[in-house]
Amino acid sequence: MEPAPDPFADLAQIQRIASWLERYHETLGGRPVCSRARPSEVLDALPDEAPEEPEGFESIERDLDTIVLPALTHWQHPSFFAFFPANASAPAILGDLLSSGLGVQGMLWQTSPACTELEMRMCDWMARAIGLPGVFTFEADAGGGGVIQGTASEATLSAMHAARRRALVRAGLLTTPRSRRPDLVLYASAQAHSSVVKAAMIAGLADGPEDTSQVRLVPVREDLSMDPERLEAMLREDIDAGRLPFFVCATLGTTGTLAFDEPDAIASACERAGADCWLHADGAHGLSACVCEEHRWMLRGIDRFDSVCFNPHKWLLTNFDCDLFYTRDRASLIDAMSITPEYLRNRASESQGVVDYRDWHVPLGRRFRALKLWLVLRRFGLRGLRAHIRSGVELCAHLERLVREDPRFTVPFARRLNLLCLRPAARAGESPDDLDARTLRLRDAINDSGRAYLTHTSAPIDGRDAIVLRVAIGAGTTRREHVDALFELLRDLVDRV
Amino acid sequence: MEPAPDPFADLAQIQRIASWLERYHETLGGRPVCSRARPSEVLDALPDEAPEEPEGFESIERDLDTIVLPALTHWQHPSFFAFFPANASAPAILGDLLSSGLGVQGMLWQTSPACTELEMRMCDWMARAIGLPGVFTFEADAGGGGVIQGTASEATLSAMHAARRRALVRAGLLTTPRSRRPDLVLYASAQAHSSVVKAAMIAGLADGPEDTSQVRLVPVREDLSMDPERLEAMLREDIDAGRLPFFVCATLGTTGTLAFDEPDAIASACERAGADCWLHADGAHGLSACVCEEHRWMLRGIDRFDSVCFNPHKWLLTNFDCDLFYTRDRASLIDAMSITPEYLRNRASESQGVVDYRDWHVPLGRRFRALKLWLVLRRFGLRGLRAHIRSGVELCAHLERLVREDPRFTVPFARRLNLLCLRPAARAGESPDDLDARTLRLRDAINDSGRAYLTHTSAPIDGRDAIVLRVAIGAGTTRREHVDALFELLRDLVDRV
Repeated sequence: MEPAPDPFADLAQIQRIASWLERYHETLGGRPVCSRARPSEVLDALPDEAPEEPEGFESIERDLDTIVLPALTHWQHPSFFAFFPANASAPAILGDLLSSGLGVQGMLWQTSPACTELEMRMCDWMARAIGLPGVFTFEADAGGGGVIQGTASEATLSAMHAARRRALVRAGLLTTPRSRRPDLVLYASAQAHSSVVKAAMIAGLADGPEDTSQVRLVPVREDLSMDPERLEAMLREDIDAGRLPFFVCATLGTTGTLAFDEPDAIASACERAGADCWLHADGAHGLSACVCEEHRWMLRGIDRFDSVCFNPHKWLLTNFDCDLFYTRDRASLIDAMSITPEYLRNRASESQGVVDYRDWHVPLGRRFRALKLWLVLRRFGLRGLRAHIRSGVELCAHLERLVREDPRFTVPFARRLNLLCLRPAARAGESPDDLDARTLRLRDAINDSGRAYLTHTSAPIDGRDAIVLRVAIGAGTTRREHVDALFELLRDLVDRV
Repeated sequence: MEPAPDPFADLAQIQRIASWLERYHETLGGRPVCSRARPSEVLDALPDEAPEEPEGFESIERDLDTIVLPALTHWQHPSFFAFFPANASAPAILGDLLSSGLGVQGMLWQTSPACTELEMRMCDWMARAIGLPGVFTFEADAGGGGVIQGTASEATLSAMHAARRRALVRAGLLTTPRSRRPDLVLYASAQAHSSVVKAAMIAGLADGPEDTSQVRLVPVREDLSMDPERLEAMLREDIDAGRLPFFVCATLGTTGTLAFDEPDAIASACERAGADCWLHADGAHGLSACVCEEHRWMLRGIDRFDSVCFNPHKWLLTNFDCDLFYTRDRASLIDAMSITPEYLRNRASESQGVVDYRDWHVPLGRRFRALKLWLVLRRFGLRGLRAHIRSGVELCAHLERLVREDPRFTVPFARRLNLLCLRPAARAGESPDDLDARTLRLRDAINDSGRAYLTHTSAPIDGRDAIVLRVAIGAGTTRREHVDALFELLRDLVDRV
């Protein structure tokens, strides 16, 4: 029989890949930010079939240079201002490398105690670092704790599912056939991320994005935050109609404009309406800023919430995927998620003295993701993370000043943290539709230049959904010169589109 | 203002971590396989708070050696025989390192075309490598294709959700209020993985593991495969009662005993019952074996299925996470998953000429996971992967011969591929319960020895659920000497427990 290959022989090649990556990061600033690849260009460059025999590293490196690199949109580029940042950093890369190299599975405590307990401690470290109340930590030993999930989408789905189970239990409905139960209803702001409605679809609470029979998108106030009075009215209306409100998702920094819902006002609205809802806060992007005390205003009332999540993989120098999901009611989460076949039973779990993270989310298998958080926190220190956040906020404030001083632009909403929304000022006689079209042409001209990448959204301006450009500043390498260059580009192009 | 830290300065430290990993793998065989850590041992060794100032690599390496390593269960150990293998390999580690180092997001084609198109091609490469019909590939251009998901649990949830939406559309039920719809019902074998029922819970089709109102666990035949006649009868009964069967999950290699359901027989059962179900095959572990033609018997009838998944991260030298999920009906999958807020709109997506993988699963953000498959396939070649699979099967057959020759053991089920189930032979007068207890004591004695790690399951023997030990052989470094050593250990300990 042919001998099996040595799986780890190539460990000696790590330095080769490391050198390639170092060259990549050294030359990154000179590359076009947004890929110019045509559809199918990469597909066409790749063979139809996997190779029968092993290939050498030379051909792999050549393909990386000639096929992969030109077809990347460079998220770590200093002139990447699109969506939200997706911070990578060398300490996180090293932590991920350790995780890959160890190759352990943390589904149960027993399958690698360090994987579980380092994660528990990292969740507590980060909770304290952003000023979350102790009820969300293991340390307080009050039934709460955190877990690393892949994305905020998955965290929202987990929270919604736990909320449903808890509501059914509390209302004594578990023995009632589903068709005879009151409709369970969930609430989020009309500006909430699409993942809330997607979670409702997957959880069987909505047939599709347009199905609002059990999903209420609460209107927003002028600052685009959820209107607590409207929430209260909707809760009362649903209760009066015999429906069962069970879940409210507040957003701490919406994706469109970084608007912040108010946890305290939302909790009070539920209380006044007599609605016993699971309150979840989606702070995917915004909550990272709370490593700096001056931004903790957003947390007011969070102690009245049941769960909260945020993504160090956005703005906290930690590679994707790393969503931190905290709950004060882990018993309800585990109750909703747990199922124990014989082949997963073991002495440690049965002792009840350990955390088995498989019961905290959808997947069973899980990587040792705490390592990257550990390395990030130890190599940058909290001081370094604060400097990173403050740099993004300062640079965005700098851009705001430049834009506000130029009459060819308007800033339709107050800048929030590191997100500035802007659009060209309307020309005399220009219709709103024409202005929208010109705004999108400006976006395309900037992105096609290769010198920056930004995206757009729509948001209500003067009673109408209008197109605005979003500039999110937070790549780890972005410095003042890159923001100044973006402004030069905006000025150059705004009159030409 | 304090300057932001340079995020990539530590790239120069990669060699340091690489050397640490090389030492780890060189010394791995001498470590106890299963961790001996006490609960809280790691927690107690870690500070309560994140450091304020950056720390040096010396202290990090010291903590890796003294806190993390002793509390790992070593999944890459050559004497790891528990659960199923979770193969790591250096090419996959290098691919993951590239993915971390590039730090791109593949949620949309535009956000890195190479991330999407390399993934499409890798899915096609693997489909061809395991002999899947062309309808599951992009190449055939017949509406099918594959995607990398995190785990089979997530793939099952995705398939179930797509199935529900398609069934509602086909039955014209989308405009019928949920409370007035017929109950949708899903089917899997009683030996199916717990993730099927967990997916039903999350999808809102079951309140908990015990709720069988919309979940049917089909009894198995003597070989522990789903009984197609029982499936047909259950389908008919549900249809006659006015319910709507919508989803059948076949398992290609159950977790307990690696039993194989028969796709062809299952499709025929549905056809005979007149049930228009989405047919999904969960081949998480077993399907990897199909890189060798001699194991493709399990695929008979798979061309009648709607989706199929398997995990190269189990037995195909590819690091977690890497589940390949294929469907012949990507339109229904996308229809069930898609939701497009303004901030994700872009020219490429609107051209309809590209694949946006965000619509193929639950999460929005996604890593460049195709890189690790690419490196695995190119560095080992298909020939290397076949040798790896054949080695696991051969070693398991070798163990089976040893065990069958020893009268102190029995082999209650035929060995399948690389999984052997065994237990001690009953002693004169020993009750079934006592034998179960002794079997678990044998498991504990082996695992406590540190010289091997195996797990158990329960399976029907003589009309009763009995405890059996599972030996899954497939770690990349396992060789004949390790299997012989396991047999010695079994022989030594069986009389002492």
